[in-house]
Amino acid sequence: MRVGIAGLGTVGRGVVKILETHRDMIAERAGRPIEVVAVSARSRTIDRGISLDPYRWHDNCLDLADAEDIDLVIELIGGSDGIAKELVERAIENGKSVVTANKAMIAHHGVALAERAEAQGVGLKFEAAVAGGIPIIKSVAEGLCANRCEEVYGILNGTCNYILTEMEKTGRDFESVLADAQRLGYAEADPSFDVDGIDTAHKIAILASICFGTRLNFDAVTVSGIRRIAPVDIRYARELGYVIKLLGSATMENGMLDQRVAACMVDRGYSLATVDDAYNAIVFRGDFVEDSFYEGRGAGEGPTASSVVADLIDIARGNITPAFGTPANRLKEVPVAPQDALEASFYVRFYVHDEPGVLASISESLRDEEISIESLIQHGDPEDEQIYVVLTTHETCERRLLRALDKLKGLKSLVEPPLYLRIVSIREDDD
Amino acid sequence: MRVGIAGLGTVGRGVVKILETHRDMIAERAGRPIEVVAVSARSRTIDRGISLDPYRWHDNCLDLADAEDIDLVIELIGGSDGIAKELVERAIENGKSVVTANKAMIAHHGVALAERAEAQGVGLKFEAAVAGGIPIIKSVAEGLCANRCEEVYGILNGTCNYILTEMEKTGRDFESVLADAQRLGYAEADPSFDVDGIDTAHKIAILASICFGTRLNFDAVTVSGIRRIAPVDIRYARELGYVIKLLGSATMENGMLDQRVAACMVDRGYSLATVDDAYNAIVFRGDFVEDSFYEGRGAGEGPTASSVVADLIDIARGNITPAFGTPANRLKEVPVAPQDALEASFYVRFYVHDEPGVLASISESLRDEEISIESLIQHGDPEDEQIYVVLTTHETCERRLLRALDKLKGLKSLVEPPLYLRIVSIREDDD
Repeated sequence: MRVGIAGLGTVGRGVVKILETHRDMIAERAGRPIEVVAVSARSRTIDRGISLDPYRWHDNCLDLADAEDIDLVIELIGGSDGIAKELVERAIENGKSVVTANKAMIAHHGVALAERAEAQGVGLKFEAAVAGGIPIIKSVAEGLCANRCEEVYGILNGTCNYILTEMEKTGRDFESVLADAQRLGYAEADPSFDVDGIDTAHKIAILASICFGTRLNFDAVTVSGIRRIAPVDIRYARELGYVIKLLGSATMENGMLDQRVAACMVDRGYSLATVDDAYNAIVFRGDFVEDSFYEGRGAGEGPTASSVVADLIDIARGNITPAFGTPANRLKEVPVAPQDALEASFYVRFYVHDEPGVLASISESLRDEEISIESLIQHGDPEDEQIYVVLTTHETCERRLLRALDKLKGLKSLVEPPLYLRIVSIREDDD
Repeated sequence: MRVGIAGLGTVGRGVVKILETHRDMIAERAGRPIEVVAVSARSRTIDRGISLDPYRWHDNCLDLADAEDIDLVIELIGGSDGIAKELVERAIENGKSVVTANKAMIAHHGVALAERAEAQGVGLKFEAAVAGGIPIIKSVAEGLCANRCEEVYGILNGTCNYILTEMEKTGRDFESVLADAQRLGYAEADPSFDVDGIDTAHKIAILASICFGTRLNFDAVTVSGIRRIAPVDIRYARELGYVIKLLGSATMENGMLDQRVAACMVDRGYSLATVDDAYNAIVFRGDFVEDSFYEGRGAGEGPTASSVVADLIDIARGNITPAFGTPANRLKEVPVAPQDALEASFYVRFYVHDEPGVLASISESLRDEEISIESLIQHGDPEDEQIYVVLTTHETCERRLLRALDKLKGLKSLVEPPLYLRIVSIREDDD
């Protein structure tokens, strides 16, 4: 199988390395050799630590889609639209299979691309687009496909998990940990894509489509990030037996799909709580298999390239499953669940002026919405004029909580709007 | 795709239920309907909670291999030889694909069966044979196949893990927890297969063959079980920051394959340590992907049937990867690593008469083999005549430890032979 690679950043370099290092093993496993014929990238001369001499060079990556001696195009340019999408479309039209790590493109155009690929009878695979080195797309689309999925969720962004882990370890605040992460290259100069949850939203939208057999609906993901998480939340989380993680999650209830990205309080006894630093992890709950859990590197040259090359081997073997598990033109349109209908327990943190009656106002407001408080913590120095009041609720509907908080808006004692986070616990039957 | 099912125990029942419950979803995902045509089992009349009316009945399961209206045979009879093997061989000879959950048969005859299946161009799949609901065979044979595997290990027997978890929770001894497990149906009347590690050995031998591309070599697995684990070991494990788990493990070093089943001390901070009760978990370490971790139900009707049906859907889709990832006739014969060459830290527990000089004898013997002691615990009431001396070593070679213990054999103070367990820690770079 003759392949062309567009994009020679971290992942592209890794793909070249694996194909060189494991040439014979891969030929054996794939049933035929996999050979890089040509490459294309922005600069030919930059030092990448690998030799490009064995490969034909194209200044224009679209040439890879047209070249007659190429069977498959690996798209590693990135970006949801533009040249990456053009390349993939053209390759498919020319009857070539495509492997990509481009989550933004798949989240926005994946179904349309899969329809074209399926009409053309070529493969479109993107294992590396979600959770780097964890073969989660293969696991849910193939290994767990006998189940009706009830819920899929996980830690899908290494940058956020790294920042939260550092905040937890050091007690430092978001801004300062982010600045360090940027210096170390763990976070982008413009970190918004990661820390505001958009990257996680791309990934959970892709997983949801595969798990539920629904048309990918990125716009319907409710997204928030980790900017508002403060050291005080990390401290209270520890006191209450939780760890704060940014989770992407998707559930199907009453035929309605709920997709969201939000920082959550995860029970310390739960496997997810032990997933630190740049690791990713996913929980899949199916009606027959019950819970299953996957953890591994979420990014990086080796892990991501490992997934790209696994896709190549799959296609070389002739395993061309529909990209989303279900044929793209059979993916169902389903209604979107109301954003505030979630049933859960919540952590709520108030920052208030320490005045008489504040606690009474808060507890009345919750009582009026029939929200019962599970625990309430108010530490603080009598000298402090502003204090934190933190509480956890029993299970309630998010709508009720929002109404209760809304009523408190007028409360003069509030220094800033309250922060609330969903609590994720182990189910009783999971032991 | 028309299938025949041989064996209608727990798993067979689950397969029928899934195929009935998810008929339409499966047809969509598989690209064609999957239909049970005929079944065979020991008794036709036993109440299984499902109706067999829609399916043709055969008293002789071999008829399924001969029936012209059957494309694929599901073998759920069990046993490494006998009728199960005969059925599978005959189905393959007749050009039918086979799906089985029979780990004993695959561990003993898997390569020969795979060679026949590959020569015939039919599928042979056994996802359910290892770790019930976790699609670990697909993950290692396909999702991680771009890697040279360095190590694969895990908790592969639910009965042992349940017993060890109960011992940990309750402080009771092995015999009494086993008796309860037998009463509750979690352990067989003859528990040897599980508690002596043979079942785990079947599974790790299968995984090793796939992960390393080597000819399956069950006879080369060094096997021990959990009978000698005592409440005192559980207590010391806790004190030292470990949990005792029965691990199957396989590593390749210097071109030699090491496969073993043994109870180990697992660091409490490690994901594996949190895997309790009947759950299974596997760690795969590859040269590019680094560590990845999989956890889920190891057995039970739903999870195991989920894996069987996933195999069916794979074959219906035309995904017929070689059973062991590499074509069976290309699997390599590799030398077996010496049993005692393992480099590790160890936990050693001595039960001795509390006499002067015992500690000196033990420490001299270790010193003579250049084994350095990391920690030593000797609690005990001065009234007790027999006491436990427990120590952990720094990394050493198992051979040295065995020599040191051998020298102590003559020591009159020893009440029973010492017990030693390998310590499994998180690697530094795994954080």
